Amino acid sequence: MFMTLKRLLIGRPLKSTELGEQKLNKKKALAILSSDALSSVAYGPEQILLVLVTVGTVAFWYSIPIGIGVLVLLAALILSYRQIIFAYPHGGGAYVVSKENLGKYPGLVAGSSLLVDYILTVAVSVSAGTDAITSAFPSLHAYTVPIAILFVVFITLLNLRGVTESASILAYPVYLFVIALFILIGAGVYDILTGGVPSELHAPVGTPVMGLSLFLLLKAFASGSSALTGVEAISNAIPNFKSPSPNNASKTLITMGVLLAILFSGIVFLAYYYGISPLAEVTVVSQIAEQTFGRNGMYYFIQGTTALILILAANTGYSAFPLLAVNLAKDKFIPRMFTIRGDRLGYSNGIIMLGIFSILLILMFQGQTEQLIPLYAVGVFIPFTLSQTGMMLKWLREKPEGWVSRFIINTAGAIICFVVTMMFFLTKFNQVWPVLLFLPLIILLFHRINKHYNAVGEQLSLATGDPVLPIEGNVVILPVAGITHVVEQSLNYVKSLSPDQIIAVYIPFEREEEALFEEKWNKRHPEVRLVTLHSPYRSIIQPLLKFIDVVDRKAKESNYQVTVIIPQFIPKKGWHNFLHNQTSFYIRTRLLYQKDVVVTTVPYHLKK
Amino acid sequence: MFMTLKRLLIGRPLKSTELGEQKLNKKKALAILSSDALSSVAYGPEQILLVLVTVGTVAFWYSIPIGIGVLVLLAALILSYRQIIFAYPHGGGAYVVSKENLGKYPGLVAGSSLLVDYILTVAVSVSAGTDAITSAFPSLHAYTVPIAILFVVFITLLNLRGVTESASILAYPVYLFVIALFILIGAGVYDILTGGVPSELHAPVGTPVMGLSLFLLLKAFASGSSALTGVEAISNAIPNFKSPSPNNASKTLITMGVLLAILFSGIVFLAYYYGISPLAEVTVVSQIAEQTFGRNGMYYFIQGTTALILILAANTGYSAFPLLAVNLAKDKFIPRMFTIRGDRLGYSNGIIMLGIFSILLILMFQGQTEQLIPLYAVGVFIPFTLSQTGMMLKWLREKPEGWVSRFIINTAGAIICFVVTMMFFLTKFNQVWPVLLFLPLIILLFHRINKHYNAVGEQLSLATGDPVLPIEGNVVILPVAGITHVVEQSLNYVKSLSPDQIIAVYIPFEREEEALFEEKWNKRHPEVRLVTLHSPYRSIIQPLLKFIDVVDRKAKESNYQVTVIIPQFIPKKGWHNFLHNQTSFYIRTRLLYQKDVVVTTVPYHLKK
Repeated sequence: MFMTLKRLLIGRPLKSTELGEQKLNKKKALAILSSDALSSVAYGPEQILLVLVTVGTVAFWYSIPIGIGVLVLLAALILSYRQIIFAYPHGGGAYVVSKENLGKYPGLVAGSSLLVDYILTVAVSVSAGTDAITSAFPSLHAYTVPIAILFVVFITLLNLRGVTESASILAYPVYLFVIALFILIGAGVYDILTGGVPSELHAPVGTPVMGLSLFLLLKAFASGSSALTGVEAISNAIPNFKSPSPNNASKTLITMGVLLAILFSGIVFLAYYYGISPLAEVTVVSQIAEQTFGRNGMYYFIQGTTALILILAANTGYSAFPLLAVNLAKDKFIPRMFTIRGDRLGYSNGIIMLGIFSILLILMFQGQTEQLIPLYAVGVFIPFTLSQTGMMLKWLREKPEGWVSRFIINTAGAIICFVVTMMFFLTKFNQVWPVLLFLPLIILLFHRINKHYNAVGEQLSLATGDPVLPIEGNVVILPVAGITHVVEQSLNYVKSLSPDQIIAVYIPFEREEEALFEEKWNKRHPEVRLVTLHSPYRSIIQPLLKFIDVVDRKAKESNYQVTVIIPQFIPKKGWHNFLHNQTSFYIRTRLLYQKDVVVTTVPYHLKK
Repeated sequence: MFMTLKRLLIGRPLKSTELGEQKLNKKKALAILSSDALSSVAYGPEQILLVLVTVGTVAFWYSIPIGIGVLVLLAALILSYRQIIFAYPHGGGAYVVSKENLGKYPGLVAGSSLLVDYILTVAVSVSAGTDAITSAFPSLHAYTVPIAILFVVFITLLNLRGVTESASILAYPVYLFVIALFILIGAGVYDILTGGVPSELHAPVGTPVMGLSLFLLLKAFASGSSALTGVEAISNAIPNFKSPSPNNASKTLITMGVLLAILFSGIVFLAYYYGISPLAEVTVVSQIAEQTFGRNGMYYFIQGTTALILILAANTGYSAFPLLAVNLAKDKFIPRMFTIRGDRLGYSNGIIMLGIFSILLILMFQGQTEQLIPLYAVGVFIPFTLSQTGMMLKWLREKPEGWVSRFIINTAGAIICFVVTMMFFLTKFNQVWPVLLFLPLIILLFHRINKHYNAVGEQLSLATGDPVLPIEGNVVILPVAGITHVVEQSLNYVKSLSPDQIIAVYIPFEREEEALFEEKWNKRHPEVRLVTLHSPYRSIIQPLLKFIDVVDRKAKESNYQVTVIIPQFIPKKGWHNFLHNQTSFYIRTRLLYQKDVVVTTVPYHLKK
């Protein structure tokens, strides 16, 4: 039944050889990998105005120079991530770059902060999209959390079906959003050029502003930079591209950069020209749309596609997280299971984990995840800074042809990213401090996982592990609860292996049962030694473990191996399991974990 | 860690031979087994007035004849349960009496309806007691459900510690309650006798009342009878009494009956004489106490002990439920685990189940369990009726000396109980109908459990089961994932058993790995046959199951037994388990449940 449901939800399993068909062309890749970055346009410009408004609306013209600053940063990031794509064509982005050039720990800082960030991406963007929907339909407000969770489940399932399938479905809303904003910006600029908008709505650029400090400007710049989160996603997901993947990835990255630059500057400019103030209930984009079109169909089209892309921004996390996890798992920093491809050739464990953690975050914050945005932004700028610095070192060390210009690009990127990161810590410390707590904790965990895997590897290797112990003979212990069909069958099996010694063990709770059973046993199986262990505390497992200890110690002396036979009922129907004490399961687990004995389970399939 | 907590909460384990010390003397038994019945005094008289007030306060004098009716019923019940105690000294009460005299299904009706009833007892009485507390401290009102759950957990733990220990602690509040009510009734009667209470407060007995129907009177009588729930508990719990248990149980029953009669008639009389009307916010007992003493210390003492005994009434369920469950489990109608004595010699599974179900009920009704009271009352009167009828038949059949008077007592009891049961269905059908739904469902479940256990018994018996199959030889299958220490050790073990055939199975996901591994294997273990099963869908289990099927079919033809060896990592620390795919566990479970092969687990204990 579970299998049928699974097939229905995620489709038939794919052969490993069908992997090629699961690669993305540029159009689809752009849609799913840039949705996070593009969606930031919906809130990035607003973040700048929210800082400036604390001084007064006259300061709004500063959004123009700040916007230009963000564009410069964007250009530096795009150019330097383009270089990363060609230098590390197997993906892994900031994690791989930092690890290779700066060392293990910087790599782990970049990797773990991105890993956490993708979880934040999913939680924050789905919550924001759900908010947009419940604002439109207030009757749904009470169901914000379940609706957000449903969206996460839906996107998770879509990704489990495979990357091409999710891309085919999700491409439409992304392109619709881009078209909607292009129409909006085009119509707005046309209105302005044709003199349809009075120029008194805004203070001219250069108007002196009282009380505006450099600190505030930097804070506004850092806030605006949050529009650049998601830019790194493509560099993590290169293996998802059709061959030649680095070229395709690079072209997609450039396209995304250009689109992002146009949309971002368009919105910043229109907001400035219309003199729009950030309001609690209405977003800046919504205000621009209303001023441009009024509340007509176009307005609702823009609002609808914005809500949709906010939710779909989550999908970028689903594309980048599993591939980053594969890189970390291959380096043995996180559990090996993240390297396993699922039925549909996606890394399903990564996809499922991302879904689970996002749902937990949504539940923890009851869908109110806005306060996580700065945390999320700083979580991107730390790996940005590290990867740029890593690239600087790479060029310095390798000095390939034309390295100077590349070095300059990465240096500029590194400096700007470092400044932005510092800005977040200086201006929003009360929101970003958790990063200082959980990054070290995660890295400690990664370190311990790594240590364990290395230790296991050493122990398993024939070259470095202990020598394999010889086995000179076998002792078999058979716990019996009576003289029944199950016991006879198990004994039959043991005898067929002809071990050196067979010991049947009987554990009565009452003294009277002891002699009675011994008599019955010796009549039926005089050839098999019976040991009875009276258990005054009515425990089966304690006396059995003690007895096995004694036997095992003696056996080890002469290199004999002890095997315990556990007969187990297998009922015909699942619910029948409740009717049988799960002693077999319990004894087996205890024996395997606590003793060094082999445990053989002889199943007894009940026929009715 | 779990063990330490367990020891702290429930104490050291007891030997089976210490069972005698876990028996109750009469004083303690009275306290824990009568708390349910005695606590009913706190709401029984009120139930009568609540029906009469629908006609008018002038009808209140009818509470006197109705009260006398309840006392007659009480006398009949006490006398006839006294007879049941001597006739069935091993306990089981209504279930055993009905089963022995009326047959399996009447027995199951009585048993299942009592089983459900004890769960209702716990939920209803703990909720009522919590209500009393939150009424006194309104700031706690928001926490009604968690407080009620905490009480259930507390009583459950107390009972897991053992029946004597819980009795020692719980005896005080019960006796304090009895003393408090004795003082109240004594002071009230003294006031009346000394003329301190004006006689105009009530209409004299015999005042004609307009619009009072027989139906209403019977409804009032049925409501008042709810004060008699819990009277049967002693007959279920006879094995908990010190020897001679039937005599001690009988004396305890009589004492309880006398106490209940005095308290019940005292409260009914005072309520009538004071002319008290039932109010939504203040209970009848509270009104009587206030009229008698004013709001002084005595008043709060009465209120406090009443709240306490309401909660402790739950404990009667904890004494009777596990023993009833033992009887049902011995007859194979419910899972066998209910017959197992825990560390402290109580039937812990029954105690824990009762706790869990009560908590679920409290959660389901959010602590508002008052509407369950009629359901709970009818759930007691059905087994009352059945057991009395059963006793009638017993006397008619056995005709021991002096049987006629006994027959008359039980006949009277049966008729009254039958009338009361019918009254519940006629007057409160909208509250008691669920009993008609869940009793058949529970009995169906019991029937199916019984069928399964009988089928298992037949299959296990050497007399009736299939003959034990001979084993002519052994085939061992060893899945290998590489040439590692684990594989070498497992192979070493297999060789020591010298089976007739060893097959190593390797399952590569990629075609290239296949030849590579075969070469390596043949170089190292040319004596062991290797089978490689290419798995294009990256599943280990599917190709393995298919292969085992083929081998097993061939082996069965010549009576060979197939054994599959599963090597399993045992990490040193619990959390390391997350770092290893639980393939061993998964394969073992699938093999045991789906194939008829022996599964041998060779543990590999990691040293670091």
